[in-house]
Amino acid sequence: MINDIYINKLIDKSLEEDINYIDIATDLIIPEYSKSSAILMAKQDFILCGIDIFTKLFKRFDNRINIITDKKDGDEIYNKEIICQIEGPTRSILTCERTALNILQHLSGISTNTNKIVNLIKETDTTITDTRKTIPGIRMFQKYAVMIGGGKNHRYNLSDMAMIKENHIISAGGIKNAVETLRKKISHTTKIEIEVTNIKELYLALQSKVDIIMLDNMEIQTMKDAIKINNKKCILEASGNITEENILEIASIGIDVISMGCLTHSVKASDVSLIVTMNEN
Amino acid sequence: MINDIYINKLIDKSLEEDINYIDIATDLIIPEYSKSSAILMAKQDFILCGIDIFTKLFKRFDNRINIITDKKDGDEIYNKEIICQIEGPTRSILTCERTALNILQHLSGISTNTNKIVNLIKETDTTITDTRKTIPGIRMFQKYAVMIGGGKNHRYNLSDMAMIKENHIISAGGIKNAVETLRKKISHTTKIEIEVTNIKELYLALQSKVDIIMLDNMEIQTMKDAIKINNKKCILEASGNITEENILEIASIGIDVISMGCLTHSVKASDVSLIVTMNEN
Amino acid sequence: MINDIYINKLIDKSLEEDINYIDIATDLIIPEYSKSSAILMAKQDFILCGIDIFTKLFKRFDNRINIITDKKDGDEIYNKEIICQIEGPTRSILTCERTALNILQHLSGISTNTNKIVNLIKETDTTITDTRKTIPGIRMFQKYAVMIGGGKNHRYNLSDMAMIKENHIISAGGIKNAVETLRKKISHTTKIEIEVTNIKELYLALQSKVDIIMLDNMEIQTMKDAIKINNKKCILEASGNITEENILEIASIGIDVISMGCLTHSVKASDVSLIVTMNEN
Amino acid sequence: MINDIYINKLIDKSLEEDINYIDIATDLIIPEYSKSSAILMAKQDFILCGIDIFTKLFKRFDNRINIITDKKDGDEIYNKEIICQIEGPTRSILTCERTALNILQHLSGISTNTNKIVNLIKETDTTITDTRKTIPGIRMFQKYAVMIGGGKNHRYNLSDMAMIKENHIISAGGIKNAVETLRKKISHTTKIEIEVTNIKELYLALQSKVDIIMLDNMEIQTMKDAIKINNKKCILEASGNITEENILEIASIGIDVISMGCLTHSVKASDVSLIVTMNEN
Amino acid sequence: MINDIYINKLIDKSLEEDINYIDIATDLIIPEYSKSSAILMAKQDFILCGIDIFTKLFKRFDNRINIITDKKDGDEIYNKEIICQIEGPTRSILTCERTALNILQHLSGISTNTNKIVNLIKETDTTITDTRKTIPGIRMFQKYAVMIGGGKNHRYNLSDMAMIKENHIISAGGIKNAVETLRKKISHTTKIEIEVTNIKELYLALQSKVDIIMLDNMEIQTMKDAIKINNKKCILEASGNITEENILEIASIGIDVISMGCLTHSVKASDVSLIVTMNEN
Amino acid sequence: MINDIYINKLIDKSLEEDINYIDIATDLIIPEYSKSSAILMAKQDFILCGIDIFTKLFKRFDNRINIITDKKDGDEIYNKEIICQIEGPTRSILTCERTALNILQHLSGISTNTNKIVNLIKETDTTITDTRKTIPGIRMFQKYAVMIGGGKNHRYNLSDMAMIKENHIISAGGIKNAVETLRKKISHTTKIEIEVTNIKELYLALQSKVDIIMLDNMEIQTMKDAIKINNKKCILEASGNITEENILEIASIGIDVISMGCLTHSVKASDVSLIVTMNEN
Repeated sequence: MINDIYINKLIDKSLEEDINYIDIATDLIIPEYSKSSAILMAKQDFILCGIDIFTKLFKRFDNRINIITDKKDGDEIYNKEIICQIEGPTRSILTCERTALNILQHLSGISTNTNKIVNLIKETDTTITDTRKTIPGIRMFQKYAVMIGGGKNHRYNLSDMAMIKENHIISAGGIKNAVETLRKKISHTTKIEIEVTNIKELYLALQSKVDIIMLDNMEIQTMKDAIKINNKKCILEASGNITEENILEIASIGIDVISMGCLTHSVKASDVSLIVTMNEN
Repeated sequence: MINDIYINKLIDKSLEEDINYIDIATDLIIPEYSKSSAILMAKQDFILCGIDIFTKLFKRFDNRINIITDKKDGDEIYNKEIICQIEGPTRSILTCERTALNILQHLSGISTNTNKIVNLIKETDTTITDTRKTIPGIRMFQKYAVMIGGGKNHRYNLSDMAMIKENHIISAGGIKNAVETLRKKISHTTKIEIEVTNIKELYLALQSKVDIIMLDNMEIQTMKDAIKINNKKCILEASGNITEENILEIASIGIDVISMGCLTHSVKASDVSLIVTMNEN
Repeated sequence: MINDIYINKLIDKSLEEDINYIDIATDLIIPEYSKSSAILMAKQDFILCGIDIFTKLFKRFDNRINIITDKKDGDEIYNKEIICQIEGPTRSILTCERTALNILQHLSGISTNTNKIVNLIKETDTTITDTRKTIPGIRMFQKYAVMIGGGKNHRYNLSDMAMIKENHIISAGGIKNAVETLRKKISHTTKIEIEVTNIKELYLALQSKVDIIMLDNMEIQTMKDAIKINNKKCILEASGNITEENILEIASIGIDVISMGCLTHSVKASDVSLIVTMNEN
Repeated sequence: MINDIYINKLIDKSLEEDINYIDIATDLIIPEYSKSSAILMAKQDFILCGIDIFTKLFKRFDNRINIITDKKDGDEIYNKEIICQIEGPTRSILTCERTALNILQHLSGISTNTNKIVNLIKETDTTITDTRKTIPGIRMFQKYAVMIGGGKNHRYNLSDMAMIKENHIISAGGIKNAVETLRKKISHTTKIEIEVTNIKELYLALQSKVDIIMLDNMEIQTMKDAIKINNKKCILEASGNITEENILEIASIGIDVISMGCLTHSVKASDVSLIVTMNEN
Repeated sequence: MINDIYINKLIDKSLEEDINYIDIATDLIIPEYSKSSAILMAKQDFILCGIDIFTKLFKRFDNRINIITDKKDGDEIYNKEIICQIEGPTRSILTCERTALNILQHLSGISTNTNKIVNLIKETDTTITDTRKTIPGIRMFQKYAVMIGGGKNHRYNLSDMAMIKENHIISAGGIKNAVETLRKKISHTTKIEIEVTNIKELYLALQSKVDIIMLDNMEIQTMKDAIKINNKKCILEASGNITEENILEIASIGIDVISMGCLTHSVKASDVSLIVTMNEN
Repeated sequence: MINDIYINKLIDKSLEEDINYIDIATDLIIPEYSKSSAILMAKQDFILCGIDIFTKLFKRFDNRINIITDKKDGDEIYNKEIICQIEGPTRSILTCERTALNILQHLSGISTNTNKIVNLIKETDTTITDTRKTIPGIRMFQKYAVMIGGGKNHRYNLSDMAMIKENHIISAGGIKNAVETLRKKISHTTKIEIEVTNIKELYLALQSKVDIIMLDNMEIQTMKDAIKINNKKCILEASGNITEENILEIASIGIDVISMGCLTHSVKASDVSLIVTMNEN
């Protein structure tokens, strides 16, 4: 889904960072003609993400490598399950191993956690999204993993949606002015979201006909009131202090979207292992 | 400590990713001449890391921004404490905010967790290090945060140290051959580490006079034997299945180094908040 | 408005392309200590765009250059008017001249033409926007010039808005399915626009509650019907075969947005001249 | 003719700019296995330029795409004519479409206009060339299109030819000194051109034995005198205020070269259309 | 051995530098369908280095080119010997020729000279290494050539080994302090080398148990004493004022390593010639 | 003379290559506040080249560094002479030292050797030039050093001059055809040079009125004949097998230009030394 020009640049950057010039141990010990098979094995249950990038990374480094798999991003993987088989020059397999795993484990970690949270509220109509709280340089990879985990993406960057926050409101002299000032210049293709912290601001936001209203760190009861007042006119998004513990309660009151920074800023890598067997040496 | 050419490239990449072209809400609502102050406030206790990069990021984007702080990387920060004050054009402060926070929160998360683990074993002589299990593109930032947290770094990349693993040994026909093959070509400035999984391999590794021996996923008792056999000849490094629960037990037996992938592959961001107050508008 | 990291990269690319290594004539003939003044003079009436980038280009190449101006982007400039004064080393002024002019003349050409078209329909409520029909590599510069000329921007890229075209509809098996398929995964922050070519499709689009409906190459009368049927529910955008001749007629029927590729794909540069006077030599 | 390393970099830059991360509508609606055919149809008469780059762009993005054509750059294309056929994955065809068209339409616009002007003076021996008045970032593409249209290129950059202008002359203290100063250091492989504005300067330029003399904004009669005085010794180039209306008159007096900025700074894109038909979906 | 991502970047940079946009003579004279064979012939005896990069360069520029050779890096080549045969499009062969030769000749020059020096001391156990005195931008290529010539590499960069020099010692207040300060933070995977200039410093260095001691510009007799005192505890490296004339004398006293800047900072290119024969034209 | 955008990119690349992330010894031992002075001292006589780039490198890395010098590129430097003084943070001085010296020593080596050769023939009117036989990535730096040494540059790249070689002639069916084919498309701003190997070819080249004729590997007597036949009509360039031994003889016969690959492909670095004294620590 992510375009290959973007993916290839990230693959190159990642491999450059991990290899620098040569893989000393591998290049000086393993003969060039050595061939190996490898299997990628799960060491826990998780939602797979990054198998396509993983494959592209190995093949971009050495196009003699073949990777066979019947798994795809989004699949549930069980502990001990074999995710894919790799065949090719031993040197290239060993040299790429760590970088490929780092990406797959990080992205699967995101998908797995996102999926867990999405499942917590699956009986509700609430959507889970990420935020801009991402690791520098790999935002789109992370957002892709959120999508694979069953979440949706919030905006990609500051250019593709307008989020009016407290300081914008103060600077413009109120919600009404802020939205009006923005509307004079903003593209008709770009949504406007506004952060509100209380019911009074909610009324002003509704009058200004923004597309999305973010209920920032609100109490449950206030959010309930907000949902009633909104009456489906705007998309309502809850954000702040939402945890696995309270998310079902919040979702159950009928909020449209819950955005969670932790999906991408605090990630636990999924555990996998690459087992390499030399065939010819 | 990390050189500015590297830092500036990462700052540019990060800001490009978050801004793309313009900050729609900020650029269309806030007037260019608007000035603000901001304070960066801790929302939990943590070990600060990245304040220098944070400062450089704001100033590189807009050199009219001033940042005043008496904190430095490695300082213990307490909940509610003010970390720094920022003065400058409102637009630039708002536009850089998220990216600067993303970096500081991620790095502080690493330092804080590293520090916690280092403290668990502070009565021992064991060193905690990271691994190559890092997030693609920001390895040096992550490794720097490990250092700030009181840990040390393992190798940066595949070119600056030789780690002989199982497949290298098999390919070379044994530990002795693997080390000899490598020594014929390796720089005298580069250390050799070898992974061993049992005592028999340890003996062979010791005979080959490598610099470091990694005891891979060994039982405590086997590690104890290894330490006795080694008798301070080599640096011994334990790796695999080491957790906050068992680390003190392992460190206490006298292992030199414990390397932990979780320091960098599974990071919980530290919680901070930037509070912006407009001065002129 | 466009961020400086983006601007500086474009400035560097442009100067590299025009200079390559040295400015043979200038570097070999003009002494290093030579100082000059220059004035930038209009050779026709136009709407200025790019004066800020123009200034940044000279100063980035040589920070000893000073540029004094009371003009800003969007100002009407009259033939023979002086736009700015430049002071600094002769060599740097001469070396940067052509590249700086190329940018300013191109962008002013866009602003001027956009402004002319915007003025043609200024009595209506219709908005003029650009499209993705831009010159590769300088899209944001071009879109900025459209904004300066009084137009608005359509989406920046394929990631920040979803435009459902004929092939998407066919692939999904109809408008309803296309929108539903998209909605399952699309961010709540992203608008959906759909191209329709007749009234039947319009009804389907309205039922699917998209954000924007593009009336593609429709006859005036059909557009009138569309506006009546739409009854302000959706944003209506006209596109295709719209010229300076017929634009007022189309705008007058009450269409919300008219998007025009010619604003950026067929640009006539504004005519200016840089007159350099040597002060010290 | 332009080398592929240069072309591929421009293709990547252009696609990155247009796609950013994903093609939302296409990637979320069209199934991955969908296959399409497309035809590229002319919507006006023009001189084709960029078909090779167009093909490379599609194939670089997705090498499963095949493009069949019997047209090549420089061919006269007639309205309604089919330029090429494209076969391949629907997603990739739709995602690349706009960027590929933007390049081909811009370059064909240049070739078409250049060709028109070249034809105006085809009975003369005068050569038409471009200038350095190009769009930043795509100079070589533009200059290539001028060549395809039957024009020739002026210098590529400030390093590959020396053009002595008014300020160089003043700084050096006259034409003679300027040329002498330059000759002491300039490569024997690099031509020297000098701008003159009257007959007196022409005599000085001829005495200095430069390679090319540019007659800057001269009256027809003065140019006639210049041609007579020059008597084929130097290449004479006319520049400034040359339009489609007066170009034949100027060419007819026997000037060697006419350079025109408008060929590249004010381009009207050629009109084409890509019609996509889904085969498998 | 050097990874292809690194090699491809250097190939692209080198070709861009040499071609810029087009190969005027070749692209305008030779028809596109012209095919040629070429042979690469030695014009002196040398140790081949770079044949793999040479091959990759041609094939990356044009994958229709085939290169057949039975030579590999490190082979002794004799004057008049044919190193490889090239088949493919004439244009691409001619355009790549100079850049490919520049790399191969430079690297072979390094290998040849390194090999000569290595042979001078082949009866000893001393290792020859390079230094960081390399040509900016191609350090790894140069270090690879040293390895091919039979030498070994010193550190690649300032991050992969710690060399304590005079100023570090003074700043820390002596050798003991310098090493201790460093040890507190340095990775257990990184070696420490220290420069000493006399026997007193050598004793201090030995007490600090560094990995390598560099004997900087020492007299032969002092080095002899150092070797005796060291008694195989540390690796001893000699550096400074070592020439082809005195190297055997120094090596013969039993120094472990001799590092020589001249291997990479003062290189004499090996002489080869590419003879191209057109087959189809 | 070389533009700063180009210089800065090379400085960044060079420092990145030498530092990678940190300067381990310096950053871990020297305190941040430590200040030093340094003097750059010649250790042989040479022609200085690169002092400006050397200064820019230090200041770009750390703008607190000041460099004071009364020397400029092209100055004769004598053994033991002090070239410049450097003041600033100890860390930055030590970290940049090697890279800055590598550039200055390489470029001064080129200037010194070029100057020596230029002086050998200073009584003649012959010009010495470089060729395209340069080290990949630093061609313009090398060509600048040739200029500083008193030589001139041959073409920079394949796009800025057309050199017709043997294969072009064969492909075109003779010298006359080759030149004519080229002339139909080549810019009037670009010179044409042709390689000839005998007098017969010289006559044909003269008939074709090329700008420069290269006498390739000719005997002295043949060159004498060529000069007589040419009778100042074309620039004559000698190339091939020209050494310090025979260059005066060749120059004395009146050849216009001698181009020598060795100026840049086989360079001996000039010897200098940086002596650092700590002031505050």
